[in-house]
Amino acid sequence: MLQLEEIITDTSRLFVGDAVPDLYFHDTYVKNIKPVYAVALPKTHDEVKALVQFAIEKDLVIIARGAGTGVAGAQVPIQGNELIIDVHLMDKIIELDEETLTLTVEPGVLVGDIHDYVEKKGYFYPPDPASKHSTIGGNVATNAGGLRAVKYGTTRDYVREMTVVLSNGEEMTLGSLNIKSSSGYDLKDLFIGSEGTLGITTNIRLKLVPLPKANVTILQAFETVQQATEATLEILKSGADPSGVELFERSALYYAEQNLGYPLKSQVGEAYLMISLDGNDQTELDHRIELVESVTSELILESHVLTADEAKKNWALRDNILLGLTKFTEFELLDEVVPINKFAELIESTKAMQDKNGLNVLNFGHAGDGNVHTLLMKDDLTEDQWTERRAALLKDLYQKVDELGGLPSAEHGIGIVKKDYMDTMTKDINLDYMRQIKRVFDPDNRLNPGKVF
Amino acid sequence: MLQLEEIITDTSRLFVGDAVPDLYFHDTYVKNIKPVYAVALPKTHDEVKALVQFAIEKDLVIIARGAGTGVAGAQVPIQGNELIIDVHLMDKIIELDEETLTLTVEPGVLVGDIHDYVEKKGYFYPPDPASKHSTIGGNVATNAGGLRAVKYGTTRDYVREMTVVLSNGEEMTLGSLNIKSSSGYDLKDLFIGSEGTLGITTNIRLKLVPLPKANVTILQAFETVQQATEATLEILKSGADPSGVELFERSALYYAEQNLGYPLKSQVGEAYLMISLDGNDQTELDHRIELVESVTSELILESHVLTADEAKKNWALRDNILLGLTKFTEFELLDEVVPINKFAELIESTKAMQDKNGLNVLNFGHAGDGNVHTLLMKDDLTEDQWTERRAALLKDLYQKVDELGGLPSAEHGIGIVKKDYMDTMTKDINLDYMRQIKRVFDPDNRLNPGKVF
Ligand SMILES: Cc1cc2nc3c(=O)[nH]c(=O)nc-3n(C[C@H](O)[C@H](O)[C@H](O)COP(=O)(O)OP(=O)(O)OC[C@H]3O[C@@H](n4cnc5c(N)ncnc54)[C@H](O)[C@@H]3O)c2cc1C
Ligand SMILES: Cc1cc2nc3c(=O)[nH]c(=O)nc-3n(C[C@H](O)[C@H](O)[C@H](O)COP(=O)(O)OP(=O)(O)OC[C@H]3O[C@@H](n4cnc5c(N)ncnc54)[C@H](O)[C@@H]3O)c2cc1C
Repeated sequence: MLQLEEIITDTSRLFVGDAVPDLYFHDTYVKNIKPVYAVALPKTHDEVKALVQFAIEKDLVIIARGAGTGVAGAQVPIQGNELIIDVHLMDKIIELDEETLTLTVEPGVLVGDIHDYVEKKGYFYPPDPASKHSTIGGNVATNAGGLRAVKYGTTRDYVREMTVVLSNGEEMTLGSLNIKSSSGYDLKDLFIGSEGTLGITTNIRLKLVPLPKANVTILQAFETVQQATEATLEILKSGADPSGVELFERSALYYAEQNLGYPLKSQVGEAYLMISLDGNDQTELDHRIELVESVTSELILESHVLTADEAKKNWALRDNILLGLTKFTEFELLDEVVPINKFAELIESTKAMQDKNGLNVLNFGHAGDGNVHTLLMKDDLTEDQWTERRAALLKDLYQKVDELGGLPSAEHGIGIVKKDYMDTMTKDINLDYMRQIKRVFDPDNRLNPGKVF
Repeated sequence: MLQLEEIITDTSRLFVGDAVPDLYFHDTYVKNIKPVYAVALPKTHDEVKALVQFAIEKDLVIIARGAGTGVAGAQVPIQGNELIIDVHLMDKIIELDEETLTLTVEPGVLVGDIHDYVEKKGYFYPPDPASKHSTIGGNVATNAGGLRAVKYGTTRDYVREMTVVLSNGEEMTLGSLNIKSSSGYDLKDLFIGSEGTLGITTNIRLKLVPLPKANVTILQAFETVQQATEATLEILKSGADPSGVELFERSALYYAEQNLGYPLKSQVGEAYLMISLDGNDQTELDHRIELVESVTSELILESHVLTADEAKKNWALRDNILLGLTKFTEFELLDEVVPINKFAELIESTKAMQDKNGLNVLNFGHAGDGNVHTLLMKDDLTEDQWTERRAALLKDLYQKVDELGGLPSAEHGIGIVKKDYMDTMTKDINLDYMRQIKRVFDPDNRLNPGKVF
């Protein structure tokens, strides 16, 4: 049997027992100090295979880890005998194939680096999670969404092929460079979004599209969230084909304005939409801007077509909501999703829950997808109050989401944080088949056990 | 135990034993006369459930059937103890929800009827198999593609939610009205394209998009297939965003011209592209037409922007290729797919195979997807020659497809016709996991056994 030191011969890529750095015990919000067996940072597919073999022989469980930006605790150790396989050093962009419009990458490449790389060559990788420093392997494992999903879909829609190492140390390639397939079961889509519970991804071929030549942002202000969500439905139906429709409450943006030190372009109303449009020609974009403005004209207080410079500054405010908030209070970030026509009702209902449970609640989110980021704020509550009120509010909230036909996670994944809610909100029969599929691929429950369900 | 006559009380919807009409023994091309136990035509979900229960108790195997337009033999009985559940009378359009942009239908609704219904209301259901009289349930079961997949994707991309009856008689709903999900394994995509081997679909909620307000067709003529495929790559990279790029050889179109009695708008060259563009505004479309013409200018012999009337007549020729051919000779229709940059090489190689094996070969297909419809023609070969030469050519062809990284089926499915090729072309490990998943959902191998793998 190979020892860890024989697999990862470069000792700077291996941490055993007490030497494991603190960062491996938490994700962005979850912290869980449990001794782990070791952390290994492979640089090749073969090293990953050898590490899995080692874990089998030592009967360790395995957590695959990318950049650790996850927000559901999915990459956090919970058992005490984990071998963490951190793939973020597998960060090579292997090939841009301009004939098949695909990009082949290792799993540790950052999604922001993918954007930069392909855009310089005239191509576009649409999925755009706000966390540009997350890895593509992590994005695939959580089916990351982001700011352009309305028009372009999520990470799932851009994975043409992926290679995974399975729990028994074998490898399998899922999908292919072919654009269409009716050749057997779609195994690839099972692995996408499976949060490291079915296999470790070591190679990914992504679909690219031509880079849109023009884009524009419209900022619209509304008296109420209800009106902003009505406007969202109108925009989606209009044929204006927005790439993003982001909604935020004034109160959520407040912290970003404080943090960045400049105001949003609009200062009226309680709710805002930032609508992005892209295309290949400015005249056509102008028509679509008119379309957006005409279908929303009865609902808005103000509408601004932003200059490039304004767009940059106002998007920075949107992207800064979470970071801004961090400086003021502890919070819990959710990513529930409801059918698009229930978005307003969900947001409204959080206000009643706020009053009932004595806990401040803010909302922002990807309105075009029905995906709300509800924020529960600790403010100056005591630890006990925070724990208790938060639990009560979460119960109310997920019950409401369920009533509305929604799901606990749109894009962050279930991990450990939403496991109980997933359990209540998913039909037994669906959960049971998910468990049976887990057993097919991982009979010894070696890969990220205790996560998702 | 309920008897069949107690489940389907209306005797016009039940055929037992010898009373089973001939049509149930074949699909469009495959014929297989095997006695079946019975054919039942349920009108409700509950009748489907009761029929499955009956099959369990009588230990019959089940074949779900839609319109029977399939071309892979997937709905043809092969065992002798089948209960065929023909759902084509479950043909109600249940609800158009303009808020979530979804259409809820029973599985027996014809895809052409869906187009007509939603387009009248200003919406668009993009998947567009040439067989407008196929059912949506059959389309989902084969992940049908068609003429607009380049821009819009396949049936898979438009199924938001579906309800299935499983082999044990239980029901399960897959997917949801939510636009995004990172909430557990994606079971829905496993069922799409599974050719009736995992469950019987009884209800489908489809995603719609706003109806494009303008569209146009460009017909381009080329000296060689090679040049037409080069032009395809250029068009795809240009950002012109075609909804379809169809390619056909002059020799394939010949039969349609004979059959319909009028010529294609262009009469020069050996290969043609028909490129469709859609959008919301004519000026923008004009720019994209220019883009197509400029990136292909060095490759074409002629390029025609068709008037609406010309487009209709020329598309009718394209759609008539198969029907036209039927009047002249027996043939076998394939639907192999290769990575888009291998399309030309594949088509070229069929010419060498034609000469080697003494069998005429024609090609047309969805060039924008890398999906070729190769046609093997019987012409005046004897039955023995036809059987023998065809088998030899198919072996060569699928071997070539495999070498090029392709797949046996892009959109028709595997059924029984391509099973052996699927077996050779798919890695053992992938096949093995497909089989294990089949066992999870159908441990008694009751649903369409002997199909796919
Ligand atoms: C400020 C901020 C903003 C964010 N905005 C968005 C957003 O807009 N949209 C969105 O979707 N998400 C967003 N996220 C969430 C986060 O970025 C995603 O979950 C991301 O996809 C995780 O990638 P990672 O590389 O950090 O993975 P990690 O956090 O390391 O791991 C996450 C999960 O992926 C698994 N995993 C990682 N790599 C592999 C691999 N190679 N093989 C198998 N499994 C693997 C892990 O086991 C774990 O289950 C945001 C997060 C932050 C902190
Ligand atoms: C002239 C012609 C042109 C065609 N053009 C195209 C094209 O452009 N693109 C394309 O993709 N296909 C095309 N096809 C193929 C064909 O139309 C498709 O395979 C179609 O999707 C089958 O639908 P159906 O209702 O006829 O199903 P059937 O032929 O009855 O069944 C096909 C398969 O679906 C399963 N099935 C049917 N209904 C259900 C259900 N409710 N639940 C579970 N399983 C079910 C059956 O068991 C079987 O495996 C063409 C066929 C013809 C004859």
